[in-house]
Amino acid sequence: MAKILRVDMSELSVTVQHLPSDAHPTGGRRFTSGLVAREVPPLCHPLGPANKLVFAPGWLGGTGAPCSGRLSVGAKSPLTGTIKESNAGGNGANALARLGIAGIVVEGAPPDGRLRLLRLGPESARLEEADDLRGLGNYDTVARLQERSSGAISCVSIGPAGEMKLAAAGIAVTDEEMRPTRYAGRGGMGAVMGSKGLKAIVVDNEHGERPASANLPAFREASARFARSLRAHAVTGQALPTYGTNVLANILNEAGAYPTRNFSAGQFEGVSAISGETQRDTIIARGGVPTHACHKGCTIRCSRIYHDANGEYLTKGPEYETIWAHGADCGIDDLDAIARMDRLDDDLGLDTIEMGATIGVAMAAGVIPFGDAEGAIRLLEEVRAGSPLGRIIGSGAEAAGKVFGVVNVPVVKGQAIPAYDPRAVKGIGVTYATSTMGADHTAGYAVAQNILSVGGEVDPLKPDGQAALSRTLQIATALIDSTGLCLFVAFAVLDDPEAFPAIVDMTNAHLGLALDAEALTALGAEVLRAEREFNTRAGFGPQHDRLPAFFAEEPLPPHNVVFDVPAEELDAVHGS
Amino acid sequence: MAKILRVDMSELSVTVQHLPSDAHPTGGRRFTSGLVAREVPPLCHPLGPANKLVFAPGWLGGTGAPCSGRLSVGAKSPLTGTIKESNAGGNGANALARLGIAGIVVEGAPPDGRLRLLRLGPESARLEEADDLRGLGNYDTVARLQERSSGAISCVSIGPAGEMKLAAAGIAVTDEEMRPTRYAGRGGMGAVMGSKGLKAIVVDNEHGERPASANLPAFREASARFARSLRAHAVTGQALPTYGTNVLANILNEAGAYPTRNFSAGQFEGVSAISGETQRDTIIARGGVPTHACHKGCTIRCSRIYHDANGEYLTKGPEYETIWAHGADCGIDDLDAIARMDRLDDDLGLDTIEMGATIGVAMAAGVIPFGDAEGAIRLLEEVRAGSPLGRIIGSGAEAAGKVFGVVNVPVVKGQAIPAYDPRAVKGIGVTYATSTMGADHTAGYAVAQNILSVGGEVDPLKPDGQAALSRTLQIATALIDSTGLCLFVAFAVLDDPEAFPAIVDMTNAHLGLALDAEALTALGAEVLRAEREFNTRAGFGPQHDRLPAFFAEEPLPPHNVVFDVPAEELDAVHGS
Repeated sequence: MAKILRVDMSELSVTVQHLPSDAHPTGGRRFTSGLVAREVPPLCHPLGPANKLVFAPGWLGGTGAPCSGRLSVGAKSPLTGTIKESNAGGNGANALARLGIAGIVVEGAPPDGRLRLLRLGPESARLEEADDLRGLGNYDTVARLQERSSGAISCVSIGPAGEMKLAAAGIAVTDEEMRPTRYAGRGGMGAVMGSKGLKAIVVDNEHGERPASANLPAFREASARFARSLRAHAVTGQALPTYGTNVLANILNEAGAYPTRNFSAGQFEGVSAISGETQRDTIIARGGVPTHACHKGCTIRCSRIYHDANGEYLTKGPEYETIWAHGADCGIDDLDAIARMDRLDDDLGLDTIEMGATIGVAMAAGVIPFGDAEGAIRLLEEVRAGSPLGRIIGSGAEAAGKVFGVVNVPVVKGQAIPAYDPRAVKGIGVTYATSTMGADHTAGYAVAQNILSVGGEVDPLKPDGQAALSRTLQIATALIDSTGLCLFVAFAVLDDPEAFPAIVDMTNAHLGLALDAEALTALGAEVLRAEREFNTRAGFGPQHDRLPAFFAEEPLPPHNVVFDVPAEELDAVHGS
Repeated sequence: MAKILRVDMSELSVTVQHLPSDAHPTGGRRFTSGLVAREVPPLCHPLGPANKLVFAPGWLGGTGAPCSGRLSVGAKSPLTGTIKESNAGGNGANALARLGIAGIVVEGAPPDGRLRLLRLGPESARLEEADDLRGLGNYDTVARLQERSSGAISCVSIGPAGEMKLAAAGIAVTDEEMRPTRYAGRGGMGAVMGSKGLKAIVVDNEHGERPASANLPAFREASARFARSLRAHAVTGQALPTYGTNVLANILNEAGAYPTRNFSAGQFEGVSAISGETQRDTIIARGGVPTHACHKGCTIRCSRIYHDANGEYLTKGPEYETIWAHGADCGIDDLDAIARMDRLDDDLGLDTIEMGATIGVAMAAGVIPFGDAEGAIRLLEEVRAGSPLGRIIGSGAEAAGKVFGVVNVPVVKGQAIPAYDPRAVKGIGVTYATSTMGADHTAGYAVAQNILSVGGEVDPLKPDGQAALSRTLQIATALIDSTGLCLFVAFAVLDDPEAFPAIVDMTNAHLGLALDAEALTALGAEVLRAEREFNTRAGFGPQHDRLPAFFAEEPLPPHNVVFDVPAEELDAVHGS
């Protein structure tokens, strides 16, 4: 029977609870958001002892289901003040699921301000002193954790940014090569972990067992069907494995929706130097890895390994949003500089999207000029130094905008808007505005229908139909984020009528349930509802489901469009 | 007939409108809040061109009514995001009223980013280039404005903090000695002025005329009656003229409600060194002025002039809240150091309350230790330098708390809680929570009944009756802030049944109206309602009418009380 670990950092104790069997299906975002909504006071300070940090694999975590290794991390966010679920790839979720752990709830705050780590094995769960790791980046942290562990482990850790409780701090999860490159980046979950005095979770990755499926043959059959669907789709079977997520750079730039220099234009003249095609060529020429799985059991394999000019490992292949954030949004067209920033973000424990957007805001304020790659790298080094400037940068775009007196600050509910300009991709604009998470492209990825012609076509430049589109996607996403499946499976789900039934069948066969597609979808809606209720009690209302005013006022070249989805339609997204 | 000046900083034009005669009685807060509520989009960026900065004397401004020289300044606040009215003493309001100016509305934003000043005379109102004043403190600014003016002027100006658009920037108004010591300090009105590119308003203080009263004999009779009432009351007739506002230091400390070291205790061991009694002795010993009127026509005369140890002018006598903020809240018991900080705040153009509270938060974060007076002064010098650290400090307590990762940040709606701990003065806690302005003691000064036995007695340590008390006071305050009368007249109004009728009679006699007391009070309620409606449309709801969680959780020594006024009672303050 699956376990829930209650880790009390005030008492320095770990208590094991059993997940009630009638809770199923639960996992991932359904688990984290449900727990946060039930147990965290909505008006508490996110860095105070009343907040809870929750980790959960999805309900398919640890099984052989393709791409089922996402780890959800939830809490009240210090960046947004809303509820937050941020999920990561890497091997952490599967390692937890194989130890029978459905969730970890980290509560309280350490009385002595010291750092500790949580070590998890097949029969054990204990806190260990870890103050000697203070100030270490995630790369050194993982190296030290490997030295003091016997056998294979997975690590979930924070860098100096999380220790400093900076609102843009994320949580790193190790990949197949034991590099801390997979991220629950958004919403400052790393700062919450820092406020709990928890430097890392070290998970035995050797002695666990695959969770038993109620009907293994049926599960295997459905899994195989799902894998076939993923392989057959042009995005998950070809584009992503070939070019990774950065295949989008040229596409979004062509669409005039590639936010450039702090959202002042929709096309970047330097895009070809930082595109997915250029990135692939560069990786291959330097002996890197152009197609790579971020966790065991991933069949899409969109991640990559990026080498420097000397052919030495530098970082994982930076994702589309990272390359946009540190690239076009800052007017930087130097792929190696962007990769160095990706490495710095991973090591310091920072969200790459928030960092790029924040540096873009700092550039708009004149702190450094647009296009200054070395200056941008210096700003990240300031974070490591913990200087006032570094702390401003590490606190995210909204805080930097306030401190530097900038008007055009691209955030919703305090979280930076990512790599798709909402004026030219209006469906994603609706998601940014109305998501329970603040601006978050992964909460309802309307780019699929607006730009990629996946799941139908909705004109990205017109307001019509965007609200209904976003609503459907937000519900589906809340469900997928609960299964533990990577959101990228949605491309297949949107186009292939066989894909979603395969998810339903995998769920039923694994858990011994008999849900239909409608019941499963209803769970997604229920997760969203619980999140919305938390946010309402935390003080968020319709006026917060809006984009910053400049998106409605300043036309975006080249299409010279503004964001014009009416407020009533935004309000109807989560309405009846 | 009174004029409204529309100053368009985008077009660099000044347009004169006539105040409709059926608008009366209007002035002060009723004018500024009404205009902001009607014309400013509630979701605009406070530093963007859509915000409007509004100046207005009260409807008794420029007359011989005692203490009627307050200048209201309104806008959407960059500190709180709410509507804001902040009012100041000094001679500015009377000078405007004597030129027949009922209000100034500054709109738009300069296309070229240059600084300008608005020069106002009996027949003229024009914008002048002022980029040569860039970076000057308020003291030097006023000196330069005097050099380039013929005859007596009053100045309304911003320092470097306002130019930098820092959220804690205030607006200075000159006093009788042409010193920029009177402040519309709270809520970042100086940043809004900076965003408009307006360095100063220079008002002819020589050629204006006293506004005609409809019935001058009746007005004079009522004014004399009102002056007698002010002289007869123990607070306005004795305590304030003798010791100034800092008479409160020992009183609040005795009450265990004097917030010490970032609100971690209610008594400060160093209080005697910074009390009103010590301040008076120090001022007298050094040849300063212990009793002084901040504007012509003030009969209370609570301001002072503070000399340094060499007998040279240093600053105005710092007010109670300033001495608390830079003193007890930072663990500093050095009156001269506090006076130097007051001078720095006035010169840089910063709100003293927000600055002290922010430095207290920085001390809680370990940036400098509690009690480090020279360190605190260095932090203010960082603001002048415009360094990242200075910008953090100048952005106020909430921003500093976020950047430095502090949990106990004493703010409501982003504005620092002033010098009365809400756990031990629960009535003022209700005002902090529910005011339309964020934490603001002047919005409903329940300290009167809770601590001073003025206007009755309500036990400060019990939750009972505080909500009703705060409600009544908030309505009365909105009215007084509209008349142009100094809020300190409320002490007399609360105790002397003759005082309020005198205000009614002055209003009617001056404006030729026939309102009764009830009708006038209804105007106060109407102002509050307009402000609340603006805030609602700006995204503020019941959840924002709360104190930070730690006030309900961490008992305050010595009484070991928490803030326990129930949420329902807070919600009922502005309810039906």
